[in-house]
Amino acid sequence: MADKAFQDYYPENMSYCYGCGRLNIHGHQIKSFWRGEESVCIFHPEPYHIAVPGYVYGGLIASLIDCHGTGTAAAASFRAQGRPMDSEPPLRFVTASLHVDYLRPTPLGVPLEVRARVKEIKDRKVVVVASLSVKGEVCARGEVVAVRMPEHLMPDKLGPK
Amino acid sequence: MADKAFQDYYPENMSYCYGCGRLNIHGHQIKSFWRGEESVCIFHPEPYHIAVPGYVYGGLIASLIDCHGTGTAAAASFRAQGRPMDSEPPLRFVTASLHVDYLRPTPLGVPLEVRARVKEIKDRKVVVVASLSVKGEVCARGEVVAVRMPEHLMPDKLGPK
Repeated sequence: MADKAFQDYYPENMSYCYGCGRLNIHGHQIKSFWRGEESVCIFHPEPYHIAVPGYVYGGLIASLIDCHGTGTAAAASFRAQGRPMDSEPPLRFVTASLHVDYLRPTPLGVPLEVRARVKEIKDRKVVVVASLSVKGEVCARGEVVAVRMPEHLMPDKLGPK
Repeated sequence: MADKAFQDYYPENMSYCYGCGRLNIHGHQIKSFWRGEESVCIFHPEPYHIAVPGYVYGGLIASLIDCHGTGTAAAASFRAQGRPMDSEPPLRFVTASLHVDYLRPTPLGVPLEVRARVKEIKDRKVVVVASLSVKGEVCARGEVVAVRMPEHLMPDKLGPK
């Protein structure tokens, strides 16, 4: 894997996301990396991330697919422009829509692997498809439609809360 | 609103869900009630449930729609059978698929209102559509396909973790 996660390139004021912000001490702080044409995120749920006892909470699964998806959208856009993720201007994406199919219960207590790839990429819109697996068995599949963050939400307009 | 939330009728061993279980002390513990043909859940995000500063984390929005959706599916199924939610056998639903459209950024610091209604109901499958609003303005819409919990996940087969 690369040394630095996608999320570690996000500008400071865009790093408070509960799912992926490195500065949100309460949050999941997910980390995504390229592995060839796919992006990968390994996540260790907390013991209380329960759906029914023994299985992972579906809302967490949706959250992981969501944030890994928008992170992949940003990384893919920098890649498409042939420039590193810490170059200006920053490219940050928000979720326009999220779809998750839960294929089977996801066991709790083992690492989750979220893999994603770009299905469609345009200047302001990236569609990412993802799967979430445990020990190689796919438990959920998802799709994230990510759009460039609107100007009025960009960090030079808003300080951290 | 009714005195007792849908989730407060769930059997003990099915009450550990991070989103809606009353026994998960780390979780969101959402509460859903009938209001006529619609179900309603009011939720107060924590200050750290941030997407970008000032706005609510999308993964939380997905989680609320998900758990309010499966709760509504259960409540609607009891209603369709003409029996109270604390009668036997229990009817619990899990999410087969979740779709959320994020229409606009959801402001943080004010209560969120999730409203849902049943779009389709069968014995083992209920489709619920939901909206999430702030001060009457819809910020997200979602659809939950909920299916009856498989036998092997039911609480008589599994103790709490």
